[in-house]
Amino acid sequence: MTPAPAAAGRNTKSAVEGSRLGPKGFQAAGIACGIKATEGAKDLALIYSQAPATVAGLFTTNRVKAAPVLATRRKVRRGICQALIVNSGNANACTGEQGLQDAEAMAHLTAGALHLPPQHVLVSSTGVIGHPLPMERIEQGIPSLVARLSPLGFPDAAEAIMTTDTRPKIITEKVAVDGDEITILGMAKGAGMIRPQLATMLAFLLTDAQIEAKVLADLLHEGARSTFHRITIDGDTSTNDMLLLMANGEASKRALHAQDRRFRPFQEALFKVMDHLALAIVRDGEGRTKVVKICVRGGKNSRAAERLAFRVAHSPLVKTAFFGQDPNWGRIMAAMGAAGIAFDPRKVSIFFDDIMVVEHGVHAPGAGEAQQRRVLQQEEFTVTIDLHAGSAEASILTTDLSTDYVRINASYRT
Amino acid sequence: MTPAPAAAGRNTKSAVEGSRLGPKGFQAAGIACGIKATEGAKDLALIYSQAPATVAGLFTTNRVKAAPVLATRRKVRRGICQALIVNSGNANACTGEQGLQDAEAMAHLTAGALHLPPQHVLVSSTGVIGHPLPMERIEQGIPSLVARLSPLGFPDAAEAIMTTDTRPKIITEKVAVDGDEITILGMAKGAGMIRPQLATMLAFLLTDAQIEAKVLADLLHEGARSTFHRITIDGDTSTNDMLLLMANGEASKRALHAQDRRFRPFQEALFKVMDHLALAIVRDGEGRTKVVKICVRGGKNSRAAERLAFRVAHSPLVKTAFFGQDPNWGRIMAAMGAAGIAFDPRKVSIFFDDIMVVEHGVHAPGAGEAQQRRVLQQEEFTVTIDLHAGSAEASILTTDLSTDYVRINASYRT
Repeated sequence: MTPAPAAAGRNTKSAVEGSRLGPKGFQAAGIACGIKATEGAKDLALIYSQAPATVAGLFTTNRVKAAPVLATRRKVRRGICQALIVNSGNANACTGEQGLQDAEAMAHLTAGALHLPPQHVLVSSTGVIGHPLPMERIEQGIPSLVARLSPLGFPDAAEAIMTTDTRPKIITEKVAVDGDEITILGMAKGAGMIRPQLATMLAFLLTDAQIEAKVLADLLHEGARSTFHRITIDGDTSTNDMLLLMANGEASKRALHAQDRRFRPFQEALFKVMDHLALAIVRDGEGRTKVVKICVRGGKNSRAAERLAFRVAHSPLVKTAFFGQDPNWGRIMAAMGAAGIAFDPRKVSIFFDDIMVVEHGVHAPGAGEAQQRRVLQQEEFTVTIDLHAGSAEASILTTDLSTDYVRINASYRT
Repeated sequence: MTPAPAAAGRNTKSAVEGSRLGPKGFQAAGIACGIKATEGAKDLALIYSQAPATVAGLFTTNRVKAAPVLATRRKVRRGICQALIVNSGNANACTGEQGLQDAEAMAHLTAGALHLPPQHVLVSSTGVIGHPLPMERIEQGIPSLVARLSPLGFPDAAEAIMTTDTRPKIITEKVAVDGDEITILGMAKGAGMIRPQLATMLAFLLTDAQIEAKVLADLLHEGARSTFHRITIDGDTSTNDMLLLMANGEASKRALHAQDRRFRPFQEALFKVMDHLALAIVRDGEGRTKVVKICVRGGKNSRAAERLAFRVAHSPLVKTAFFGQDPNWGRIMAAMGAAGIAFDPRKVSIFFDDIMVVEHGVHAPGAGEAQQRRVLQQEEFTVTIDLHAGSAEASILTTDLSTDYVRINASYRT
């Protein structure tokens, strides 16, 4: 996570505005096949690599796992794939044996159309839980989806994986590695049910670098720790979260290894893509009017600091105060106190951006409410909590809780 | 908690409608002294017993404890008291050394006016955090508060402890014990920041029975376990929660002991009062349009069942679905899966009242959506989750999450 949320946005460029080309050898497509109720809304996406790619994945920690999560997790363990088919509008979760068969059928149909072995085709779904997939529509859609595969098809695919997202989230980064020009493309959908541990949404990362599956897995874990695992909107965890990283090696002369010093720029570029997508997900949080960085420092250990940060970020009273632009630091203290973490309230300082509002656990002298309110009137700001108990820290990004969040979720079917 | 939330309301009578008299030897008063911004809003309450009373208390588990919580907890340990002064509009929390002095000063001023030792006067506060108490107003208010003490003053006191509550919560129960007519009066304030473990609000229980402090403490713990600890609105825990039980013995010829068979009817009446107040708090939850009982049964152990029930009750997505009257059971499954409790999703059944909506973890055959929606259109209903893994169960009461909840908390200062 970049230090200031606002800065992160400026430093990354969207593929929609920048290059429309993905990594070498990758193609994509996105079409409307009638899964979503809205006429013409794209709901079926395909990503294809002309050569087999190594792959790593992170999957939801929810005990209730959707059929595509179970199917894809099994395939990813083998470390190799060549295509990914994704539908939105239906999660294929809590669909029992039929759901598992449908997920497999989606892979088989796609594999047939692409002349690939079915075990090389991954499946992902997002949308409403508990309804069987409309397999007829998917079956009818797959041939035209395959026909539309194109190196320019990524924006369409990014659009086809959206649910309550208000905009597609896609970014391309290029990095020179030992004379090779490596491209990394990332796309994600988020908006609701965003929460750390684990994957927190759908995000697909593609690169033409050549990297072993084992190394990819390490990269993905490390990158997620400071990006996708550090964002939260409503504290709910989806049944369908999936984060995949595929590398087809089409732009590399030789494989990148973790020990290799050429590895560092690649890793930086990859984490930049992950950071961008994580921030884009928070920025497009359901009904959000604010993006707030909660930074806990001076903790005894980083786990405790993180737990405090998440407790504050999940407190409905804190989140509604952000929505109301109310510098109500008492709710932050109350939320911290309920985190089940030992700290001395009399040592706590709290800052809104660089304005100290609490010192030694009480109202800081000289912190005028008007000045505090001006910080909270910004669209993005940072709340820093200093425990003065050690040197550990943790930062997370979250949103406010707005009347629109309630309206969206009272009427939308996830 | 009574089996059906609706039934519990019908079986209890409010003191405002019934007898206005409290237990023998108790008097109360409530006045406006200018702590609340609203002109004429009552904000200072006093409860007084003509004889010293035994007392027991439960206090917030929040690590950030308001000054009156610290002061009163210390006094309650001695097991004896004779008066309680409560203000609303200001929590006297996160107010440092000054706050502790102010809490003591409130007790001293009250003790002086009533000619009592200060250690027999308890203090309680609720309202905005982080602002010093307006001690001048409180000091000016105390003489007229004392002057208004009356056996008919309980409704005024119940009104004076309210914050965002829309109505006072007060009830009187009478029970015959061995020829003595014992009275139990309870009053509470709730509305927001309601969450189990611990006390969850302000609630004061008074009786003219004669009971040792040790026995009172056991009673309070046992009663809270099935009432105040089993309700939740937004999952936030206040810095000021306090539940007190006082017994002055004025209507008893001899002391009640736990082993005594005369004890049973008294205990039942007390728990009925606690149950009534807990339900009244949920019914008056901030912005709530629904009261929902979440019942998890068939669990391996009751702790796991309870944790699952609370996870479902705290899920913003589940709560907004209740607000939207949307029979979206997928969100219930997703919330359960994120509780960190082991269960087999393929064994789960879910019922809305008596309509089965999920069987073996998937959509139950024959459960029409219109039929399900009719259950959710009621103001109060029960969601039963059967894990089919054992015989443990847990039930809690909660509310929906409405646009009004957000509006209230975006503008109100707790």
